Amino acid sequence: MFKVGIVGGTGYTGAELLRILAPHPEVEIAVITSRGEAGVPVAELFPHLRGHVDLCFTAPDPEILADCDLVFFATPNGTAMKLVPELLARGTRVIDLAADFRIKDIAEWERWYGMSHACPELVAEAVYGLPEVNRDQIREARLVANPGCYPTAVTLGLLPLLEAGVVDPSWLIADGKSGVSGAGRKAKVGQLMAEVGESFKAYAAGGHRHGPEITQNLNGVAAAPVNLTFVPHLVPMVRGIEATLYARELEPGRDLEAIYARRYASEPFVDLMPAGSHPETRTVRGSNLCRIAVTRQGASGVVVVQSVIDNLVKGAAGQAVQNMNLMLGLDEALGLGALALLP
Amino acid sequence: MFKVGIVGGTGYTGAELLRILAPHPEVEIAVITSRGEAGVPVAELFPHLRGHVDLCFTAPDPEILADCDLVFFATPNGTAMKLVPELLARGTRVIDLAADFRIKDIAEWERWYGMSHACPELVAEAVYGLPEVNRDQIREARLVANPGCYPTAVTLGLLPLLEAGVVDPSWLIADGKSGVSGAGRKAKVGQLMAEVGESFKAYAAGGHRHGPEITQNLNGVAAAPVNLTFVPHLVPMVRGIEATLYARELEPGRDLEAIYARRYASEPFVDLMPAGSHPETRTVRGSNLCRIAVTRQGASGVVVVQSVIDNLVKGAAGQAVQNMNLMLGLDEALGLGALALLP
Amino acid sequence: MFKVGIVGGTGYTGAELLRILAPHPEVEIAVITSRGEAGVPVAELFPHLRGHVDLCFTAPDPEILADCDLVFFATPNGTAMKLVPELLARGTRVIDLAADFRIKDIAEWERWYGMSHACPELVAEAVYGLPEVNRDQIREARLVANPGCYPTAVTLGLLPLLEAGVVDPSWLIADGKSGVSGAGRKAKVGQLMAEVGESFKAYAAGGHRHGPEITQNLNGVAAAPVNLTFVPHLVPMVRGIEATLYARELEPGRDLEAIYARRYASEPFVDLMPAGSHPETRTVRGSNLCRIAVTRQGASGVVVVQSVIDNLVKGAAGQAVQNMNLMLGLDEALGLGALALLP
Amino acid sequence: MFKVGIVGGTGYTGAELLRILAPHPEVEIAVITSRGEAGVPVAELFPHLRGHVDLCFTAPDPEILADCDLVFFATPNGTAMKLVPELLARGTRVIDLAADFRIKDIAEWERWYGMSHACPELVAEAVYGLPEVNRDQIREARLVANPGCYPTAVTLGLLPLLEAGVVDPSWLIADGKSGVSGAGRKAKVGQLMAEVGESFKAYAAGGHRHGPEITQNLNGVAAAPVNLTFVPHLVPMVRGIEATLYARELEPGRDLEAIYARRYASEPFVDLMPAGSHPETRTVRGSNLCRIAVTRQGASGVVVVQSVIDNLVKGAAGQAVQNMNLMLGLDEALGLGALALLP
Repeated sequence: MFKVGIVGGTGYTGAELLRILAPHPEVEIAVITSRGEAGVPVAELFPHLRGHVDLCFTAPDPEILADCDLVFFATPNGTAMKLVPELLARGTRVIDLAADFRIKDIAEWERWYGMSHACPELVAEAVYGLPEVNRDQIREARLVANPGCYPTAVTLGLLPLLEAGVVDPSWLIADGKSGVSGAGRKAKVGQLMAEVGESFKAYAAGGHRHGPEITQNLNGVAAAPVNLTFVPHLVPMVRGIEATLYARELEPGRDLEAIYARRYASEPFVDLMPAGSHPETRTVRGSNLCRIAVTRQGASGVVVVQSVIDNLVKGAAGQAVQNMNLMLGLDEALGLGALALLP
Repeated sequence: MFKVGIVGGTGYTGAELLRILAPHPEVEIAVITSRGEAGVPVAELFPHLRGHVDLCFTAPDPEILADCDLVFFATPNGTAMKLVPELLARGTRVIDLAADFRIKDIAEWERWYGMSHACPELVAEAVYGLPEVNRDQIREARLVANPGCYPTAVTLGLLPLLEAGVVDPSWLIADGKSGVSGAGRKAKVGQLMAEVGESFKAYAAGGHRHGPEITQNLNGVAAAPVNLTFVPHLVPMVRGIEATLYARELEPGRDLEAIYARRYASEPFVDLMPAGSHPETRTVRGSNLCRIAVTRQGASGVVVVQSVIDNLVKGAAGQAVQNMNLMLGLDEALGLGALALLP
Repeated sequence: MFKVGIVGGTGYTGAELLRILAPHPEVEIAVITSRGEAGVPVAELFPHLRGHVDLCFTAPDPEILADCDLVFFATPNGTAMKLVPELLARGTRVIDLAADFRIKDIAEWERWYGMSHACPELVAEAVYGLPEVNRDQIREARLVANPGCYPTAVTLGLLPLLEAGVVDPSWLIADGKSGVSGAGRKAKVGQLMAEVGESFKAYAAGGHRHGPEITQNLNGVAAAPVNLTFVPHLVPMVRGIEATLYARELEPGRDLEAIYARRYASEPFVDLMPAGSHPETRTVRGSNLCRIAVTRQGASGVVVVQSVIDNLVKGAAGQAVQNMNLMLGLDEALGLGALALLP
Repeated sequence: MFKVGIVGGTGYTGAELLRILAPHPEVEIAVITSRGEAGVPVAELFPHLRGHVDLCFTAPDPEILADCDLVFFATPNGTAMKLVPELLARGTRVIDLAADFRIKDIAEWERWYGMSHACPELVAEAVYGLPEVNRDQIREARLVANPGCYPTAVTLGLLPLLEAGVVDPSWLIADGKSGVSGAGRKAKVGQLMAEVGESFKAYAAGGHRHGPEITQNLNGVAAAPVNLTFVPHLVPMVRGIEATLYARELEPGRDLEAIYARRYASEPFVDLMPAGSHPETRTVRGSNLCRIAVTRQGASGVVVVQSVIDNLVKGAAGQAVQNMNLMLGLDEALGLGALALLP
């Protein structure tokens, strides 16, 4: 049994890590920290874990954390970068579910996240934890930057088109929609159900932090610089992300479905849906899958891709456990076999 | 008092016509028809109308309808075209809330709607009932084709850009999202709450009937042929449409907000939101307004427009009453002053 | 035109007062206060009021408020009691939408609300603003205590049974369910959509503040002391209250529907539904109506009453305007004629 | 590996059986039938099962079914009773998830279900499949009548009180609330999201089929005849049942929590929550647990019990698998260990 720790366990990604890790056959949750809730049983905050998680939250203690084989950071942006260097120095491996190590261009990161980076030297070392792209590097990594939720859905949706060179990288549109759990478990008027229930809106239409993260991912495979317009939207539901992606074909007539089928043939967590499908977020609720459909609209010359994930699973905690499995030399899919909950 | 009739009153657009017309100071609802519910009090099907609408549904009777000054068709596609010729011949004016008279190209209409048109000669005469475009023709019209819900939101959102010639008509994207009332009040497994609640999906990604309607609208003002990709989505809420629209700027640097402000300066039902706004569908719930915001994303060269309406009001019954007011020589906004219901 | 003021305008009851009062033909909103938002245009916080309310929030100023004919307090519990004495002294009449003046027993009030009462002498004078019970006293009142949302639904539901003496007052059950807007517009983790969406629960099962308020109302008409068990529940929707009420019949066989019909025959805002009905909250959404149905379950000897209101309208702002109309000598229903928004 | 069959697999209970049984380590799904969808891959109707269930629906064939060790009926009421006699005769054991074998009094069953019973002799033999009551008989049963969803939540909630004799059986109230999946996957106007979203209502207030089923359960343990008033309500969410139960104490002062703790001490799927808890339906979403809290309201003499389940799991398919495990001599909890999905 490997020993793992979770720093910052009172948010939804922390709770979701516990839900997935509690029955995991090869790891033991040694510690879960929270400054604000130290001493409180986890199951008091999260009654769905009653009987499965007997831990109490504790104040973060570097000794105890360093004793773990691997530590997850489920903290707000800017927290992990302060604690990770010491943990790595002591030989503990780290997966950060926040954004601290996702963007390689430090200046750009600082612009979007509004703070100075505490350990820029580790950003270069950190491996971006999208197994469909970086599987081998993840296995060896000391530090994994777990991807953002939108970036996971959008990158997996556009990747095959850009790798195959069949669309124009200079005019990509990603229209993202997310359930409200993506905004986290913090008290904010704008996230009250009375504010966001029975309503729909875009947000950050002028630019969102996940834009540069997606662009970085796509630039890694595109033949020319990517120009992506990304607009996120808030859906009156709890879980799920859907991204509808628009790209201009360079050579009409290519067999798009075959391109996707080939790219994801051996991926355990990408499901290419049949032609004509409309993936629904509920078909991945609680599961680690990304379901994708690709189509065209008549002779418009535009490829339309739909990509759905559960923002808390493949978009956060599930992908983190997938990365953990790789890092620990386990079966990549271990503990991630749950079927989606539908309806 | 003008006498009006409603053909097909058991759907949501019929019910919404009743809600708006019942307190209207210048019209009297003379008749409301339904084959299936003939004899049943309207307030039995729609308890929210108890005390305000005392009518029973009746079987459609051309005599009684012809006695009206104006008749609304809130029927399924393909019904109005069979009954309208006789009504017009007898001097009754008509507003069709379905799609029978919206598309000028008969062949295209027949392809999308899967039937032969019963009175193609009237299609040419019919006026497309978007007051912001055709106000004067609507006043004089015998027959008005009330716009579709998505076409209203998308057309009003893109119109100023195309009229001003500031974006490329050959690469327009409209990502539309609608509440479930847009699918109507028919028993369908796919519209059960257990199927569409807590989930999000695109539909008709390969092409939707409202695509050619929008394209026709935009071609009317664009300098070159419009190439529009339109993908609709289903939102787990009851009312509201949001459309996020993407267009490529031809001449960066134009004052887009000023273009919209000028275009809609005297429009009673278009509200240009301040820069940086994100219009929410709830801010137009129950009202006849279309709220629009226009922005850019950095230097991407892409204009992002957000447009929201209540699909049953500005997207159907409210716009129909706006057209009725124009046709009857009344104040265009009469009976349409209700503020949105928020939260 | 009467001049009215609103103290504490940033919550949902304040916003709803504005929505109803803005088009009211006999009053002018002279001032709306908020310490936190002073200087901010109302329409910035509440975009649905754009074009209808041009005021900015101002810091509360006794001079300006005293200049009003009537002032509404839409403040948290405990605020009105500190400001009302001065306003009354200067001749301004007051409607308090919070709980400060609802409960006559000061000790009981202080126990439930956890503070000392600042002006117990005014509690005796205050008239409980349920027009169906206290219409004449409301007309003459200087100070009206606007009822709570649950108390409105439950009291109107049980009143006819207790007045007619047909049920046992010592064993009454009120199972209440409310949409989330009842919890107000304050940032609280427990009211995030990610916490309360797609879930249902009771709260305050050990006792809720509205219990003693309801009991006080019913004791006013019951032949013997009332013993009421009241459990509220949170429904994953924004607006609406439903209360299902259970009472034991003392004399089986009475015509219950006739008792209700007689009691509410001339009430403009109580709608007795036909036998067998199941009132839905959506049939009163945005309207000032309370819809009630009364039935029995076989020979159980138990009367089952269903009562629905919109918690923000008949349960708060609408009832306050109804009270205002009475106090100002206007038609009781003025400005309250809006039909419910369904679907 | 045991072979199991499912008759009627196109509804939600059928789909949920598949979700639970597909990864079950000791059974193999041999056949799943549907007349309407014969030949269609299961994963086409239920995309969340893609990759986990490779079967196609087949027309019901007695040969194939009789070849199974155990057959589940997930059919409408009235179907199982026609097919079960032959299966039993051929040695196949049966769990009926519908109501055909739940009520021992045939006349009462026929009154509530509106049909003649096809095999009344089997009703006497059938074991009511509530393991917390009939565990030993279930192990030996040929035919198990799987309980209704409301009856499961209400019976588990009231059982300890009646067994201990601490409440008056002649005055019990059960106020039940269910998500919309309880109404099944049939096209009905009344279950459209546009009809039931953002609204709340009671239904069957005059009497519901689950009333006599609950009464039968409670009469089995009560000291005197039970008089229960049960009113179900529809909640605008997909999954979950909450029942709030009211009973009059016969001897105030008993330690209610201890009574529940003792009764359910060794039950794997009943979780007694701490005093003051308010069980939320989301804490059991997707899990087979029933969570219960018991409290009093001051000195009212009324016990208030809250009981929550997932209507499709402990209220249907999960409980059926629990029964199957017992019948097949397996660990009762096998395949039922999934944690609830929260948020």
